[in-house]
Order: sequence, then structure tokens, then C-alpha cells
Amino acid sequence: MAQNKEVVKRVEWRINNVGDGSSEISGHGCYMWEMTTRLAMKLYIFVKKAWEIGVNDPRKFIHCLKVGIALTAVSLFYYMKPLYDGVGGNAMWAVMTVVVVFEHTAGATIYKTINRICGTSLAGFLAFGVHWVASKAGDEFEPVIVGVSIFLLASAATFSRFIPTIKARFDYGAMIFILTFSVISISGYRIEKLMDMAQQRISTILIGTCLCIIVSLTICPIWAGQELHVLVTGNLDKLANSLQGCVAQYFNHSESSAEVNNEESNKKLIGYKCVLSSKATEDVMANLARWEPAHGRFNFRHPWKQYLKIAASMRSCASCIDALIGCINSENKAPDHIKKNMSNISLKVGANCASLIRELAITMKNMTKSSKVDILVMEMNNSAQELQDLLKSYPSLVNPSSSPNNAQDTETEVASKIEISLMEIIQVVTIASLLIEIVARVKCIGKCVEELSDLAKFQPAMCDKSKHHTVDNKINPDQDKDEEAINNKLQIV
Amino acid sequence: MAQNKEVVKRVEWRINNVGDGSSEISGHGCYMWEMTTRLAMKLYIFVKKAWEIGVNDPRKFIHCLKVGIALTAVSLFYYMKPLYDGVGGNAMWAVMTVVVVFEHTAGATIYKTINRICGTSLAGFLAFGVHWVASKAGDEFEPVIVGVSIFLLASAATFSRFIPTIKARFDYGAMIFILTFSVISISGYRIEKLMDMAQQRISTILIGTCLCIIVSLTICPIWAGQELHVLVTGNLDKLANSLQGCVAQYFNHSESSAEVNNEESNKKLIGYKCVLSSKATEDVMANLARWEPAHGRFNFRHPWKQYLKIAASMRSCASCIDALIGCINSENKAPDHIKKNMSNISLKVGANCASLIRELAITMKNMTKSSKVDILVMEMNNSAQELQDLLKSYPSLVNPSSSPNNAQDTETEVASKIEISLMEIIQVVTIASLLIEIVARVKCIGKCVEELSDLAKFQPAMCDKSKHHTVDNKINPDQDKDEEAINNKLQIV
Repeated sequence: MAQNKEVVKRVEWRINNVGDGSSEISGHGCYMWEMTTRLAMKLYIFVKKAWEIGVNDPRKFIHCLKVGIALTAVSLFYYMKPLYDGVGGNAMWAVMTVVVVFEHTAGATIYKTINRICGTSLAGFLAFGVHWVASKAGDEFEPVIVGVSIFLLASAATFSRFIPTIKARFDYGAMIFILTFSVISISGYRIEKLMDMAQQRISTILIGTCLCIIVSLTICPIWAGQELHVLVTGNLDKLANSLQGCVAQYFNHSESSAEVNNEESNKKLIGYKCVLSSKATEDVMANLARWEPAHGRFNFRHPWKQYLKIAASMRSCASCIDALIGCINSENKAPDHIKKNMSNISLKVGANCASLIRELAITMKNMTKSSKVDILVMEMNNSAQELQDLLKSYPSLVNPSSSPNNAQDTETEVASKIEISLMEIIQVVTIASLLIEIVARVKCIGKCVEELSDLAKFQPAMCDKSKHHTVDNKINPDQDKDEEAINNKLQIV
Repeated sequence: MAQNKEVVKRVEWRINNVGDGSSEISGHGCYMWEMTTRLAMKLYIFVKKAWEIGVNDPRKFIHCLKVGIALTAVSLFYYMKPLYDGVGGNAMWAVMTVVVVFEHTAGATIYKTINRICGTSLAGFLAFGVHWVASKAGDEFEPVIVGVSIFLLASAATFSRFIPTIKARFDYGAMIFILTFSVISISGYRIEKLMDMAQQRISTILIGTCLCIIVSLTICPIWAGQELHVLVTGNLDKLANSLQGCVAQYFNHSESSAEVNNEESNKKLIGYKCVLSSKATEDVMANLARWEPAHGRFNFRHPWKQYLKIAASMRSCASCIDALIGCINSENKAPDHIKKNMSNISLKVGANCASLIRELAITMKNMTKSSKVDILVMEMNNSAQELQDLLKSYPSLVNPSSSPNNAQDTETEVASKIEISLMEIIQVVTIASLLIEIVARVKCIGKCVEELSDLAKFQPAMCDKSKHHTVDNKINPDQDKDEEAINNKLQIV
């Protein structure tokens, strides 16, 4: 960047020098030169940003190379005569299949492969049926029968794409069905060897899809299920950081001074926004993950839908955190001495919630039932109860009608009575109340994770505590970076 | 349904009768029969549900018919010899284009059309360049040059799809670019008349896309912009209903008794959830809307992005409502006499917020600057201030250390002192505090709508108040139904 600025400066210097004592024409030339330089700069910045996207998640580069490899491999069918003749010169279909079917995640590639093969086969059979009927009906009626059947089947297949269950699983297949049916049934009118054409189309599609599947699953495969898993567990950590962070920031406001960590802590604070905005990605990933075979620690029928439930409960918790942050930034600030009174226990509730959420994240990451979850839930409940008790122990409210009487109290009594207006404590009370609500919603996340551990048959954790801790430590630093990268990726995708 | 149950009963009766005194084989036959009936029933229910989807939004049926019409029209190219010969027997490309390009909204169709034409043209030119270079290099190097260029360009184009700005506008174009480039440059190895092939491909794509655009824009067009507009204004109404509904339900709980309206009111209460979950749809619609020409009351460069800002501020308000509902359902119930004290003013705040939101919705629907918005904002602020004042006027809290002294008070004093524990009012205080926060967030929605009215140059409203009211009344009932239908649709899409 510094280099760029220097270039621009030099250009400006030249422009100024030239512009001083020269005609308008050379000024015009300078303008053009300046424009070109600016354009080049913009292009440079664009390329640099694009490069950073890839550097942040090198798997993107790998994906691009995979597409290149698959396409170059399928091109061989054009260059090798035996291969080319083998598919009757229809190698183009194989190339098209590779371009259209090859997707970023293995799940998406498999989904498109199966849909393409099923859609093409089904449409092929139907088209032959229609062609047979039409050919029996005579030359006059043939176009009519074929036209009407295209109209009806295309309309019906288009409508099926509006039905949620079909949309989720066979949307692409329905489109391919329309495509193949139209092409084959109208080709029947002109092409004699329809059977050959259909057989070649099927075989080229098989070649293309097989190549895609092989390249997609063998070279650094990106599994939609794994992405979903990492996204949800990463979001759990973000939620924990946000929750603990905002409680800590509010109650330790005067104490924490270091502005060095400010940017980082602010970044942590708004982590809950990722939770709120990742619904669409989660839905897509869960939808694709069910097409994937067993991979890594996930079985074929891993309960991916449960991840969506966990995510939904996380979002409900995140919206409470959003309200909490709103209250923290509201106008009715509580005075410090009141904050101090609630500080310890509130911080404890925040920390306990965060520990539980983190433990749930670890449970999911390790795919083992954690023995600590029950203890952490109990601790969280206890601290919430303590917060309630503290609120209960708070002074009673005295009806204002008695206030004049208070004025008659002796001086010693006045000294012992410290009156607090409701306005002063409203913020703290609201925050306490929201914290109690958050505790309830965190419990809900815990239940969802427990359901997942039952559905996916998580193994009980090792009893050896020290071992357990090393596992935690070993996994976190590795995955944190990974998650960061994946989340960056997902936001862009 | 009643008819179905009767069929099932009859079948069961038959099964029982047959099963009584017959052999295992006939039992097996019955089992098959029963299975078939069940399958038929399931199919019937599926078809019925699908039919209902269409009946709820007849535009879906229209869309299906449009696809049928477009495909049948493009099939004419196969049946009419002059047309078929005109495109050199490559009519199949036109059919494919129609199937792939024709989308539900006009914006999506235009987006795909432009992307397809640009991607194909650009790839065509590049492929010719590469082919020319390769043909000069001699027979040995030709496959190598073509292969390397495919590998590099396909990888680069695939990578460009990861860059957010390109992803949003030219994702489909990048795919078509890879497709066309690969097909043309490798075809050059075998096909002599490459120029003819490219020209035919371009002309068939033009035919297909023109047909799509004509059918899509002339027969009941569905505009993405209009959808977005209706979705956002509908969500504003839903938000207002939810907010007013949940405040009213909490404070009028003992008074409202009619269970008849329960289902409807519950439906209204959870309207805010639609606001929270419609982000993905809004993003897609806003992205497509910018491709659309001026339509209805929207200009070509209507500020669609501002709708996303409005939606974001609505979501922030909705998450506060979510927290509010959480607090309403929490364990710390406030006693009725305390609720009664806050009831009037809280209901007023809720109602004022809802009126403002509804007025904002009307502003957007009519696309006129409303003169009432300022008054409504003022009223909302005033009621929020009243709520604050009420809280301020609340009795002071007396420090517990003084409690023993209170015991010495005379009986008259005790009578005038009604002590309220903090636990009793915590729920009401939290709700009041959240209401104040919601007021702040509703103001934020108001600002976003005002920005929209400036950007889109809304006309000032008529001064004649009575006229204004009739406009409101005229528009609401019509649009309500429409929105319902569109929202149903969007949830499915």
C-alpha cells in the first residue's frame, strides 16, 4: 500500500509539473494518465482483497485447482480419439456436467450428481414413452402430442419445485427433468437414432459425474456436515464470549482500563451477531450434509437436523444478549455503588453461563458426553438462584405516602437508612432479570445438545480428568483458527 | 378427508372379515392391499397439500403455465423447418436456455439472461483467441495450450465466485463463462467450422433469453422488488401486532377472557418471528431487484438496499420483543395490583409504538411522506417519558438495616406504609425497561424509513386528513391478503 501511495504521489508531482506551464492538451493527457493510474490502483486493491480471501481460507484455492483438474481431465475425452469415439462425439455433455455439478462441498456435489442422474433417467424413460405414443399417432398428431406433453410435464415439474419437501431434496433434479424431457422428446422429431442419443447422454453424464465425485471426495474434500459442525460449535464459543464479555464490560467498566485489548474485546462482544445471522448457511449445510456418506467422526445418518435445533436455541439466547446490550447502553445508568453491589454475583452468573456453553461446545467437538455438564448446569442454576436471593434481600419499597413520616425520624435512623430511588436501580434490575432469562435459554441449549448426544450416541467421556483437560487444550487452538477461516468463508459463500 | 377415513374403515372392515377364517396367504394379500391403500392415501394427502400451496398463491400456478408456454413456444423451432435450419439444427441450445434461465421473479430471469449472454460472449471471444494461438503453435502443442488455458481460466473464474461483489452479481455468469470457454476451446480441436458453432450458440441463446424475457415480463410478471416491498411492509405490520399484542396480553390478562380469538391472537403474537427469520429472503430479493427495470411505482434505481437496513432495524426490535416475551413468561410473576399500577401507561407505550410502526408501513405502502409520523414519534416519546416518570415516582428503596426501626412505627404509620418487595416488581420493571429500549429501536426503524423516503423521493402526503384516512383504509384490506399470500410463498421458496 505504501508503495502505491508513492506511485500516486509521483504521478501527482508529474501532473503538477507538467500542468504548470503547458497547454490544455497536455493537461488532458495528464488527466487520462491519472485516470489510468487510478484504475490500475483500484484493480490492484481488488486483486489484493481477493487474494486475501484465498489466503484466509486456502481451501478456496484448493477448490479452484480441483475444478481446473476435473475440467482438464474431462477434456481428455476430446483429445483421445478412442474416448471421443466411445461417446459418439458427445463429449461436450461430460464437460457441461463437470462444470454444472462440481460444487464447493462434497454434499452439494453428491446432491447434484444424484439429482442429475435420476432426473435425466426418469425424463429419458418418459420421453421415450411419449415418443412411442406420438409415433403411433401419425405424422399429423405427433407434434401436437409432443407439445402438449411438454407443456403439461414442464408445468407439473415446475410446480413440484414449490413444494417444500421436493424443493429441499430434488429442486435440481426437477430442473434437469424438464431439460432432458424437452430435449429428448423434441429431438425425436428430427433425429432418427434417438436411442443412441439418449444412451450417449446418459453415459456422458455418468462419466462427468463420476469424475466430479472422485475429484471432490479424494482431493481435500470439504464436507458440508463438517462445516455445519464447525460453524455451530464455533458459534457456541462466540456466544459464550459475547455473554461473558458484555457482563464483564458492564460491571468492571471502571476497573478495566487497558485500551489495547479494546478492539479484540469489541470483536468478541459482537460475536452473538454471527449467531443471529448464520441461519441461512446452517439450513443449506444441514440440507446438503444428509447426502454425504460417513466421513470423519460422522456416520451416514448423523442427526444433522438436531444441529438446526441447537442453532435455533442459540439464536433465542443471542436475541436476549442483544436486548441485554441494549439495556447496558441505555440512558438510565445505574450509579457505581449499586453496580458494585450486584457486580460479583452477576459476573458469576455470566461466567457460569459462558462455562456451560463452552463445555457444550467441547462436548460437541469431542463428541463425548461430558461429565462436567451436569455440574456446570447446577453451578449456573445456583448462581442464578443467588442472584434471585440477592434481589429478594433488597430493601423493600416503601409507599410514597409514608415518606413525610420518614422526615420525622431521628438522625441516627436517617444515617442507617440509605434511600435508593427505583430509577437508580432499574438498569441493574433489568440486567439481572435478563441474565435470569438467559440462564433459562442456555439451559435450553444444553437440552438440545443432550438430545444430540443421545441421537448421535456420543461415548461417555474419560473419567480421567487430567486427560480430559489436555484434550480440550489440544483441540481448541487448532480449531479456533479453523473456525475463523470457515466462518469467513461461509459469510462470503 | 372424511371420505378418506371412510375408505380406510371399509378397507379395515374387509381385512378383518377376510382375516377371520382364511389362510395365511390371503392374509398376505390383505396386507399388500392395505399397504397399497395406505400408499394411495399418502399420495392423495401429498397432492392435496401441494394443491393448497398453489391455491394459497395462484401466482404459482401462473408461473408454471408460463414455463409451459415458453417451452412449448421454443419447441416450435424444432417443428418448423425454416426456424430449425435457421439455427443450424442447434435448436436444443434455445430449449436449454429457456429451462435454465426462466425463474420465478422477473429480476432473477433478467439477472440470468444478462449473465448468460455476457458470460457466453466473453468466453467465446477468449476461446477464439486461445484457439488462434494454439493453432499457430502446431499440432503438438495445441492440446497443451488449450488444456493449460482451460485449467487456468476455470480456476480463476471459480475463484472469482468466492469474491462477495462478484458472487452477488455475476455468479451465474462466471459458471457460464467456464462452461462456454471449455466447450468452445476444446471443440476447436475437432470441429472445423468453429465460428459457425459459436455464432449459432450465441443466436440460440439470444432466442431463448428473449423468449424468457418476453414471457416473464408480459404475462403476470412477478417483480422481486415488489415482493421485497410487500415483505418488508408486511413484516412491519406483523411487528406492530406482536408488540401491541404481547403487552396487551400481559397487562390485560385477567380481563380478556374470550378463548375464541386465542388462536388468531397467538398467531399475531408470533409475527415477530417472521421478522427474525426473513433475512435470507430479503437479501436475495434485494439482490435481484436491482436488475429490474422501472415497474409500478418503483424507478430503475429504487434504493432497494435501504429496505435491508429497515429490515435489520426491525430485526433488532424483534429480538427485543423476543426478550420481552421471555420475561413475560418467566417465573417471577408480578402480583396483579402492581401490574394494574403500570398497566395503563405500558399499554399506551405499546399502542403508540405499534401505531408508529403501522404508520411507517403505510408511508412505505403509499410511498408518500406521512405528516402523522412526527406526531406519532412525539406521542411515543411522551408515553415513554411518562413511563419513566412513573418509575421515578415509585417509592424509594429503604436500606434493610433500617427495617427493625420500622417495627417501632405507630400503627397509623404502618397502615400508610405498603411495603413492596423488589422481587414483586422485578418483572414489571424489566418489562418497562425493555419497553423503553423497544421505543429507542422503533425510533431507529423510523429513521431508516425516513432515509428511504428521502432516497426514493417520496411525495409529501395530502394535507387533507380525511382523504389520507380513506387511502389507508382502501389499501390495507387489499394488501393484507396479498401479503399473507406472498409471505406464505416466500417461506416456501
